[in-house]
Amino acid sequence: MIPVLGGAGRLALPDFTPGTVWLVGAGPGDPGLLTLLAAKALADADAVVYDALVDPAILDLANPAARLIDLGKRAGRPSPTQEAINDRLVALAREGLRVLRLKGGDPFVFGRGGEECLALADAGIAFRVVPGITAGIGGMAYAGIPVTHRGMATTATFVTGHDKSGALPDNLDFGVLAALPGALVFYMALGTLDEIARRLVAAGKPPMTPVAIVSSASTAAQTVIESNLARCAEDAARSQPKRPAIIVVGEVVRLRGWIASLQQTGPVQTGCGSKAAQSLCA
Amino acid sequence: MIPVLGGAGRLALPDFTPGTVWLVGAGPGDPGLLTLLAAKALADADAVVYDALVDPAILDLANPAARLIDLGKRAGRPSPTQEAINDRLVALAREGLRVLRLKGGDPFVFGRGGEECLALADAGIAFRVVPGITAGIGGMAYAGIPVTHRGMATTATFVTGHDKSGALPDNLDFGVLAALPGALVFYMALGTLDEIARRLVAAGKPPMTPVAIVSSASTAAQTVIESNLARCAEDAARSQPKRPAIIVVGEVVRLRGWIASLQQTGPVQTGCGSKAAQSLCA
Repeated sequence: MIPVLGGAGRLALPDFTPGTVWLVGAGPGDPGLLTLLAAKALADADAVVYDALVDPAILDLANPAARLIDLGKRAGRPSPTQEAINDRLVALAREGLRVLRLKGGDPFVFGRGGEECLALADAGIAFRVVPGITAGIGGMAYAGIPVTHRGMATTATFVTGHDKSGALPDNLDFGVLAALPGALVFYMALGTLDEIARRLVAAGKPPMTPVAIVSSASTAAQTVIESNLARCAEDAARSQPKRPAIIVVGEVVRLRGWIASLQQTGPVQTGCGSKAAQSLCA
Repeated sequence: MIPVLGGAGRLALPDFTPGTVWLVGAGPGDPGLLTLLAAKALADADAVVYDALVDPAILDLANPAARLIDLGKRAGRPSPTQEAINDRLVALAREGLRVLRLKGGDPFVFGRGGEECLALADAGIAFRVVPGITAGIGGMAYAGIPVTHRGMATTATFVTGHDKSGALPDNLDFGVLAALPGALVFYMALGTLDEIARRLVAAGKPPMTPVAIVSSASTAAQTVIESNLARCAEDAARSQPKRPAIIVVGEVVRLRGWIASLQQTGPVQTGCGSKAAQSLCA
């Protein structure tokens, strides 16, 4: 074990009790953004039920004896229903296992964590919610974009880019969104970007409003497309960014050039793959 | 050291190079919500420049040899200007120190982190931004409130509750805020809660819309007041919640009773104060 964590070793983290579920946010991708509680959960879990947005480098940290269960939902492929996932969590907990439900980002930011909590509560199973860094804040930070900035953004609004059918949610009023003074951050919106940009401009948002598309945020594969409302759909179609991507619309994107100039964002190395790690793992 | 972190010990976290600044979010309070990178920064820093929102239990984890520098701004007391903080970070880095700038929550969510990044970039000093869990998401989770929930909230909007003068920012359009379909989360808004509630109701938000005031989120001192727009200012005046508090307005507050019923949120113990920790520290 590499003693990188110094004083944190003095923490007594809570027990992961058999027969309970920890619903944990894994953050945007960089394993260094795992919380101490998430790292403990990975070390102690008997079963890890993970979704499609969890970075493989993070699954590498799981207890080798743990059952790894992929219940990821992926666009365009048959995938488990939310009800099936809920039932599986309940069943594993009833086996007496320490069940880690691991989700990308934060469980409560468009992550359906609330539904899983309600299902567990209904079944009488105790659970712990461990928040994670959401990509719309932390992933954007790795791309050099602060979600708020004094004088530029007194609000920050997070919007889901699709509903159950894959279309934009029909209760979104683009007049309201266009009138907000701060950044708009769209989750899972690559498929609806064209419509989002058109409707924001139609509602009065200036076509030159900056847009950034941040893909694989905070990982070694991170890409950032800087664009604006007028041409972002075209830019995305040409560059084909990988999913998942976070799309931010707002003046804060202009800060990226300054902030990224001296920002260090080298990814964390996992396992014994890196040279530095090899000497320490030996 | 307590080997709680299992596989995370296999991570090779990036070097904290002398003469650089790490701008780190400490999360809402619970030390278990520190990221691995934040824990490493605390262990390695030569100087820790912290603000008023960092929980004392987190400062306890700093390297005992580090200089601890309190540059917290507190309402109603003389406090350093943002410029003075920026200058101090630059000066400490130029001394060749590993400078940890530790902020409550996330540096980029109403944390003025962007301004500090720009000052460091101007001065030619390399820095790393380490996002933290923001109280409006993670702190609310500990109170049993998911910031989004399918069928109830397709947006989540974060709003700063005051500007430089302590009043509500004058570019906030309450007609727009009242028309958003999801939760409104106000930061540092206890002083302006009365005005916020009045203006939301005047703009058409139903007076019975649920409100929660979450104080000292995720710590042992956490308190939650459940109320509604019509009476939240009065409830806050009577209960006098401690600052900082996060105020959430929206239907998601109704989920709290269900989620909190079986949710485990015992705080993490630091140092050797707890019985469990004593046996391990011995």
